Amino acid sequence: MTSLEEAFDAASFRTQGHALIDQIAEYFTRVRSTGTDSMPVLPWVDPESMRRAWPASFEKPGEQELSSLVARVLAESNHLHHPRYMGHQVAVSLPLASLTDLVSSVLNNAMAIYETGPVSTSIERNLAAWLARQVGFGTGADGIFTSGGSVGNLTALLAARSAMAGYDLWEEGSHAGPPLALLASEQTHYCVKRAVQIMGWGAKGVSPVAVDGRFRMKAAALADAKKRAEDAGRRVIAVVASAASTATGAFDPLDEVADFCEANKLWFHVDGAHGASAVLSEKYRHLTRGIERADSVVWDAHKMMLMPSLLTAVLFRDGKRSYEAFAQQASYLFDGAARPEDEWFNSGTRTLECSKSMMATKLFVGLSVYGKELFADYVTRMFDLGARFAERLETAPDFELPAPPDGNIVCFRYMPPGLAVDKDALQLKIRRQILGDGSFYIVQTRLPSGLHLRVTFMNPFTSAADLDALIDRVRAAA
Amino acid sequence: MTSLEEAFDAASFRTQGHALIDQIAEYFTRVRSTGTDSMPVLPWVDPESMRRAWPASFEKPGEQELSSLVARVLAESNHLHHPRYMGHQVAVSLPLASLTDLVSSVLNNAMAIYETGPVSTSIERNLAAWLARQVGFGTGADGIFTSGGSVGNLTALLAARSAMAGYDLWEEGSHAGPPLALLASEQTHYCVKRAVQIMGWGAKGVSPVAVDGRFRMKAAALADAKKRAEDAGRRVIAVVASAASTATGAFDPLDEVADFCEANKLWFHVDGAHGASAVLSEKYRHLTRGIERADSVVWDAHKMMLMPSLLTAVLFRDGKRSYEAFAQQASYLFDGAARPEDEWFNSGTRTLECSKSMMATKLFVGLSVYGKELFADYVTRMFDLGARFAERLETAPDFELPAPPDGNIVCFRYMPPGLAVDKDALQLKIRRQILGDGSFYIVQTRLPSGLHLRVTFMNPFTSAADLDALIDRVRAAA
Repeated sequence: MTSLEEAFDAASFRTQGHALIDQIAEYFTRVRSTGTDSMPVLPWVDPESMRRAWPASFEKPGEQELSSLVARVLAESNHLHHPRYMGHQVAVSLPLASLTDLVSSVLNNAMAIYETGPVSTSIERNLAAWLARQVGFGTGADGIFTSGGSVGNLTALLAARSAMAGYDLWEEGSHAGPPLALLASEQTHYCVKRAVQIMGWGAKGVSPVAVDGRFRMKAAALADAKKRAEDAGRRVIAVVASAASTATGAFDPLDEVADFCEANKLWFHVDGAHGASAVLSEKYRHLTRGIERADSVVWDAHKMMLMPSLLTAVLFRDGKRSYEAFAQQASYLFDGAARPEDEWFNSGTRTLECSKSMMATKLFVGLSVYGKELFADYVTRMFDLGARFAERLETAPDFELPAPPDGNIVCFRYMPPGLAVDKDALQLKIRRQILGDGSFYIVQTRLPSGLHLRVTFMNPFTSAADLDALIDRVRAAA
Repeated sequence: MTSLEEAFDAASFRTQGHALIDQIAEYFTRVRSTGTDSMPVLPWVDPESMRRAWPASFEKPGEQELSSLVARVLAESNHLHHPRYMGHQVAVSLPLASLTDLVSSVLNNAMAIYETGPVSTSIERNLAAWLARQVGFGTGADGIFTSGGSVGNLTALLAARSAMAGYDLWEEGSHAGPPLALLASEQTHYCVKRAVQIMGWGAKGVSPVAVDGRFRMKAAALADAKKRAEDAGRRVIAVVASAASTATGAFDPLDEVADFCEANKLWFHVDGAHGASAVLSEKYRHLTRGIERADSVVWDAHKMMLMPSLLTAVLFRDGKRSYEAFAQQASYLFDGAARPEDEWFNSGTRTLECSKSMMATKLFVGLSVYGKELFADYVTRMFDLGARFAERLETAPDFELPAPPDGNIVCFRYMPPGLAVDKDALQLKIRRQILGDGSFYIVQTRLPSGLHLRVTFMNPFTSAADLDALIDRVRAAA
C-alpha cells in the first residue's frame, strides 16, 4: 500500500508530471489532425456501455498507473481540441490556462475569506474591475466570479430580488409580499427559469416576451408581457435579456430593453454567458450595444474566452449591489466600519460558494501574457466563421437557414429540393450518422419550425476547408 | 503579438509544462520544511496592499512569462502544503489529483449532457454509487457531484422541498402553500440558512435546535424547535444535522435525529461536508452512526479526501429523489421512457450547473491508484492528531478546551492562571502575532463563552512535534 508520504513525494510528482506533460503534448498534436490519421471528434459509445466499462469499485489499489488511466480518459472523451469539434459552446482550453489550473489545483487557496486565498482574491478583484470596464460600466462597478453561468444568473437575480422586492425579502421571506415575476424571451437559457423556480416563484415567475423572426426579443412586446404578469397578481421586478441566446445565438436588442427598464424602474439583467465576450471585438461589439446600461451582467470566460470550466463573472454596474445577493441587510448597513464593501476581500459574502476554486487565476495569466488582443482576435475569428458558414449555406440550394446568425452559433437544416421524407427525421438521421462516425461533432436544436442541426465555432483551428467538409458530410449522410 | 496558433502550439506547451512541473516539485520540497529555512505558512500582506501590487490592466501583452507569474502566485499564496498549516478545513491537494486536474482542464468536457462529457459522466455515476455505499446506503441510492458544499446543500434542500411541500411547489410557487421551515442547530454552517433564504423562506425558515455542552444537537430539543415553527404558522419539512459542524467539529447524534424524522415524517439531511469522510475510517466511523438513514447527504471531497476544490457529492438514499431538485415534475413522470432516471447521463437535469468541470475524475484517479485505504488512513491520522492535541492542552495548566474534540477540528484558548487582561483580546493578540510572522496558520471562532483559537489538522506532514511547537508559539505570543 502506498503511504501518504509516498503519495505526496515531490520526486514522484516530478516524474509523473513530466510524463503527463509529454502525454498531453502528444495528444494536442494528434487531435488536431484532420487527415487520414484523424481521430473521431467524439468516439461514440452509448452511456450504459461506457459506464460499465469504467471501474466502479475502489476498495483495493488498482493495478493501473496514472499514465494508463489518463491515456484512457484522453482517448474516450469528447475532443474539443479537434478542429471539427463544432458542438456545444464550451471553450477549447488555452494551454496556458490549463497549466495555470494545475498551479491553482496544487495551491487550493479556496478563498471564502481573504486569508485562505490572498492572491486569488486580489486577482479576482482586479480582473472583475477590468471586465466591468470592457462591458462599459463606470468606476462604481464591481463583480465576483462564480462556478458557472447558472449559479451566476441565480446570483444576479437574487441581487435583483433584494434590490427590487420593496421590502426585506431576504429576512422576512417571500410570503410577506406579493408573488414576483421577471420578463424574458422563450429563447432564454433554461437556467433563468430554474433560478426563478429555485427562489419559489413557480413556473409563472417568468412572463414570456415574444421574439422576432431572428429570435431576438421584441422590445415592443415587453409591455404586454409585463401586463400579463401583473394581471395575474404578480409584481414584476426585472427583465432578463440574452446576449446571446443559446439555441440560435441571437442577441436581444439591449438598448431598447434598457429603455423599457428605465421607464418602468425594472432591474435589467443581461445573460451574456456566451456573447458578452463580443465586447472585446471591435468588429462585433455593436451586437452588445446597451449592455453598459444593465444592472447586472453574467459573462462566462469558459465559453468565448478560451478558459477551462468553470469561470463566470457576475458584474454589477453599481458595485454595492454585488453585496446584496446573499445578505439583504447589506443595504441597510452602509455606515461606518460595518459597510460590507469595506470587506470586499471576503469573497464568500458575495458568492454562493463558501470554498471556491482559484478560478480567475488562469484568465489573469492568459491576459497578462497575451493581452486583450488575443481574445479579441479569437472572438472576431469565430464570429467570422459563423458568417462565412451561413453564406455558404445560403448559396447552397439544398440547405436552409432559419435566420442569419449574429455570431458563431449557426442553426440550419438539410432540405434538398423535392424532399420526400419527414424533415425532422432527416436532420436526426444526419446527426446520428455524423455522431456515429465521429467525423464532426455537431448538435441539434428544436425551433418553432422544426428540428435543426446546430454548430458553434469554438476551435481556433477550424478552417474554411472544415466548413466545406461539413457541408459535404451532411449531404453524404442524407 | 502572439497568434492563436502560437498560443495553442503543442511544442510550447511541452516546454512550458516541463518547466512548470519542476517549479511545482521544487515548491513541494521547500514548503514542507519546518527548519530554519522554513517559509511563512501565510505571508501576510493586508488585502488592499496585496490587490494594488497585482496588475489590473490587460490591454497589452505583459512582459512577464508564465514562470515568473507562477513564481509570484506560489510565493504569495497561503501554503496549505506547509506542515504548520492548521487553518480552515480546505484539503491539502493530493499531487496525483492535481495532475488529473490538468487533464480535465485540457479536455474541458463540460458534461451538462452525456455527449459533452462521456467519460466524466460515467466516472461520476460509478463514483457516486461507491460513495453512497460507503455511507451505508442501499442499492437504490444515487448521487451527483456539484461545485461545493453550499451548492450541494441547496440542491439537497430543493429536493427536500419538492418531496415534502405537499403540492407541486416547483410549478405553482411558494405562495400556493404555507411558509416552510426546517430544523437545524445554531452550529449549522451558514450556507444552510442561506439556502433557506435563497428559496424565499426568510430568516425564520430555520427553527434553531439547542445544542449540548459539546456543541452537538440535542435530539430531545427537536420537538420544541418544531413546535415553535408551527406555532409561527410554518410547515416543517426537514431536519438538517451536521457531521460535523464547522466551528467546533461536533458530530450531531444522527441516529437520534433519524428517529425523530421517521416519527414525524420529515426529510433528514446530513451536512457531512467535512465529516462524512469519517465513514472511511474504521476507528472513527462510529461518529457518523445513523448517516445511512439520511434522505440526503452532502460530502465534500475537497475537505477530508485530499481533493482540490471543488468536489462535492450530493447523495440520496432513494436515488429517484436526485431528479427532484430542479424539476418537481420528475416525480409525476415515472412512467415509460419519460422516466427521468432513464436519462441519468444528462447530468444537467440534476445539478445546478449546466456546464460543469470534470470534477470527479481526480477522485476516481486517486482511488483507482491508491485505493480506499490511503484515504481511510488519512482520516484516521488527522482525527488522531485532534485527539492528541486536545490531550496536550488538557494537561497544560494554561490552556482551556471548550469541549473535547470529536475529530480534527480543535478549539481552545490560552488562559494562564491569574489572567489579568481581557480573555478575548488575548486570543486575538495571539492570533495576530502568529498571523504576522507566519510561523503557523491558525484561525479563530466565537463560541458562546467567548473568542477561541481554532485549528484543523489537514496536512499529512503535520507531526506531534508541530503540535508542541504551536503550544510554545502561543505561549510566546501571549
